[in-house]
Amino acid sequence: MSGTPHSTVLALCATLIATGCAPAGPHSLSQADQDAIRQIEQEGSKAIRDRNFAAWTALFTDGGELLPPNGAAIEGRAAIKAWADAFPPYSGFEATTVSVEGSGDLAYARGNYTMTFETPGQPDHGKYLEIYRKQADGTWKLTHDIFNSDVPLPVPAAKS
Amino acid sequence: MSGTPHSTVLALCATLIATGCAPAGPHSLSQADQDAIRQIEQEGSKAIRDRNFAAWTALFTDGGELLPPNGAAIEGRAAIKAWADAFPPYSGFEATTVSVEGSGDLAYARGNYTMTFETPGQPDHGKYLEIYRKQADGTWKLTHDIFNSDVPLPVPAAKS
Repeated sequence: MSGTPHSTVLALCATLIATGCAPAGPHSLSQADQDAIRQIEQEGSKAIRDRNFAAWTALFTDGGELLPPNGAAIEGRAAIKAWADAFPPYSGFEATTVSVEGSGDLAYARGNYTMTFETPGQPDHGKYLEIYRKQADGTWKLTHDIFNSDVPLPVPAAKS
Repeated sequence: MSGTPHSTVLALCATLIATGCAPAGPHSLSQADQDAIRQIEQEGSKAIRDRNFAAWTALFTDGGELLPPNGAAIEGRAAIKAWADAFPPYSGFEATTVSVEGSGDLAYARGNYTMTFETPGQPDHGKYLEIYRKQADGTWKLTHDIFNSDVPLPVPAAKS
């Protein structure tokens, strides 16, 4: 930054402070709400990694919906937990939140995941989109969670 | 309705009118906005059915994101159109909107789709979740579109 006029640096700082500290408008999410959702995202990632599906499904609304690939939509915490309990064994899971956006009591999170199965040679990675609704008590709960894999389907081996 | 006191019927009518005509609260979507999004959903379904991908991608924001299964996320109208142009031939497509919800300038649509490929014996059906943002000109545009199939993956045939 040697040679940069002080006034330019001060103007840049003022802009950054103003941007970071601006109150959320009617069509954006407050920093507190964004932080709360990112925290839930981390809790969800850990719960899945730990196979703690009671903790994971507690992040959903009562009638929340899971939309997994290659299977029907699953509605409600109990049904989602039953689906997760039957999931094949895995040795690793990590969800990374890419963005959290919202308006009023509605928000969504866009993220990526990586997953390592216990069967060797079957790592998976993909993407997800989740809808959150702010509840009467001020907490955010998942109403929808959909994901799919980035990994191409295997091409059937050509008959020789 | 014979025997129902007039006062009860009138109260019911008043309730229905009030509910139907109530302005959208800060945390819900107006009927006009819901109708506009359902209309876009229909336009999108027709555009995909007609393989009119210029019309389909025009429903996205400039930087909108398509999140298809078994492939990487695709960002931007031009890239989404290139992906769609390379999609295998199909003879039928129908998207059915299940619900449209929103708050302020943010909304989402949850729906189902069916798709028939030209290669016999490969029909597909699945589910989708889409995020819409109201633009400065009052129109709604897609920022995210993610989907996956309900059809289970084929189990590799056991070696005999």
